[in-house]
Amino acid sequence: MLMKRGLCCFLAFSLALIFVGFATAQTLDPLPSWNDGKAKQSIIDFAVRVTEAGSPDFVPPAERIAVFDNDGTLWAEQPMYTQLLFALDRVKVLAPQHPEWKEKEPFASLLKGDVKGALAGGEHAILEIVMATHAGTTTDEFEEIVKRWMSTARHPTTKRLYTEMVYQPMLEVLAYLRANGFKTFIVSGGGVEFMRPWSEKVYGVPPEQVIGSSIKARFEMREGAPVLVRLPEINFIDDNEGKPIGIHQHVGRRPIAAFGNSDGDLQMLQWTTAGHGPRFALYVHHTDAEREWAYDRHSSVGRLDKGLDEARSRGWIVVDMKKDWKSIYPHKER
Amino acid sequence: MLMKRGLCCFLAFSLALIFVGFATAQTLDPLPSWNDGKAKQSIIDFAVRVTEAGSPDFVPPAERIAVFDNDGTLWAEQPMYTQLLFALDRVKVLAPQHPEWKEKEPFASLLKGDVKGALAGGEHAILEIVMATHAGTTTDEFEEIVKRWMSTARHPTTKRLYTEMVYQPMLEVLAYLRANGFKTFIVSGGGVEFMRPWSEKVYGVPPEQVIGSSIKARFEMREGAPVLVRLPEINFIDDNEGKPIGIHQHVGRRPIAAFGNSDGDLQMLQWTTAGHGPRFALYVHHTDAEREWAYDRHSSVGRLDKGLDEARSRGWIVVDMKKDWKSIYPHKER
Repeated sequence: MLMKRGLCCFLAFSLALIFVGFATAQTLDPLPSWNDGKAKQSIIDFAVRVTEAGSPDFVPPAERIAVFDNDGTLWAEQPMYTQLLFALDRVKVLAPQHPEWKEKEPFASLLKGDVKGALAGGEHAILEIVMATHAGTTTDEFEEIVKRWMSTARHPTTKRLYTEMVYQPMLEVLAYLRANGFKTFIVSGGGVEFMRPWSEKVYGVPPEQVIGSSIKARFEMREGAPVLVRLPEINFIDDNEGKPIGIHQHVGRRPIAAFGNSDGDLQMLQWTTAGHGPRFALYVHHTDAEREWAYDRHSSVGRLDKGLDEARSRGWIVVDMKKDWKSIYPHKER
Repeated sequence: MLMKRGLCCFLAFSLALIFVGFATAQTLDPLPSWNDGKAKQSIIDFAVRVTEAGSPDFVPPAERIAVFDNDGTLWAEQPMYTQLLFALDRVKVLAPQHPEWKEKEPFASLLKGDVKGALAGGEHAILEIVMATHAGTTTDEFEEIVKRWMSTARHPTTKRLYTEMVYQPMLEVLAYLRANGFKTFIVSGGGVEFMRPWSEKVYGVPPEQVIGSSIKARFEMREGAPVLVRLPEINFIDDNEGKPIGIHQHVGRRPIAAFGNSDGDLQMLQWTTAGHGPRFALYVHHTDAEREWAYDRHSSVGRLDKGLDEARSRGWIVVDMKKDWKSIYPHKER
């Protein structure tokens, strides 16, 4: 009988410890890399409003969809988009198989190290580079190529791995929303197959929750086994008006929270906030020339112009990176 | 002190009850509408193999992706695809706005009640009907139209709601796999926006896990608010070779289990089983003319011909509906 009581008390004590554990976790700061202020508070207030039982703004877990742009919102995008740097590296790797590139723009300039000259051809030049470097392999092969590059390539100025140039404060937002029952999606103008090989490890976002631009693929049998071959043909551009369309195609449900940093995200924020019930929209404003980069209305990469005006007139949250973020990048390797 | 002990014991007792609850749940038959036999056993064996800690075939939860065709696999598809019946009904609803249809095929035949005559135009006629009835609205409007139709339209012979013509044994497979940490996806040749309005309620599959055929959409501002307008232009056909492509675009990860019923699912089953590690493929074979329909190699709807041969030569599971299923449809309304 005594033993029984002892067991009872041991169990109850264990249970109590578990409860104390919960309580402690809830009082810890969920966004430690954010300075106190309106931006941080608005994120926490929104999460509380939509999750608190009995709140007039309560949203069932299945409808707690949050969408995040990637370039400039979750990781750095200067001096140029990471995927473009990947493509430039691929041109060098593939050059021996393409002797004609020595005479053919934009490849000729690139191979001479003249990136500016190569990109002078504008969108057409970029498209040529992307198709030459992103198509032609199977999907499995491309995944391996991306993984290898991401684990070795270094940023031209910081010398960090690109996956170490993700924003620590945004990693905390992703984790905090997930802890509050949100499903977090990436909705990027970048290539979906360029993000999926590492999005789960780095952001905690599984491949099926990554939406992006894509090229077409063809199903083919090779030695009795099916493969998908990547074709040099655009399938979908997930930018500007494409973002709400991509979200609708992929998620089929309107998000209640959207995070972006450029005019390319404006329609996604409009689409998200136009739904009924509680909505949240946030722009990351790059204001920190010292720790990161400072740019907005006149940048060719990640321009934030119309979006900034609309954010102000609509009362969306605008994060001042310099003021609102305690740190930019994670301390340890990811 | 006595009260404290009482509380201790109460807590321990509650805890014990919870454990007993778990144990009971695990010994209950997870597939009660399946007769004992190879098909049922193979599903259970597979789930055990990939979930048991220490099993050489253990698969981490994130990679437990199972894909299910819809028409003929999760619900009935005879005498014709439900979505076609929806389109025929829509033609009647929309006819007053289209006086020209009285003279124009395939609409003229349809409006005279001659479905066979209307469909004699083959794929082109079907495409005309689908575009006329599926495009032109906003995505929100279309969702409401589908919901209304699904809650009122009745099957021509059984007089059931279409959502009551889902297969009870397959609902159990969906729930059983989810209970074992699987993420269940629908991968259907049917329109994605025709399935999403009810897939969560009926199948427990949220809209973001429904992959299907689609038409294009345009982002538009109407009175200051964004809408997506459905266009009469095919975006993607999620059938045959399209299924692995749709899975790759949408999930970005190869499934480990695939369920289908027709040749349109063959490439999905090939793609699924070609991956490394444990794989599972199952065909539902419609063999029950009394309780449902019996058809395979010579049916224009849901033909199963090449797939049946390949299933036999590869050792995929072929469900004999008549023999393997205790019941076909759920007893209560869904």
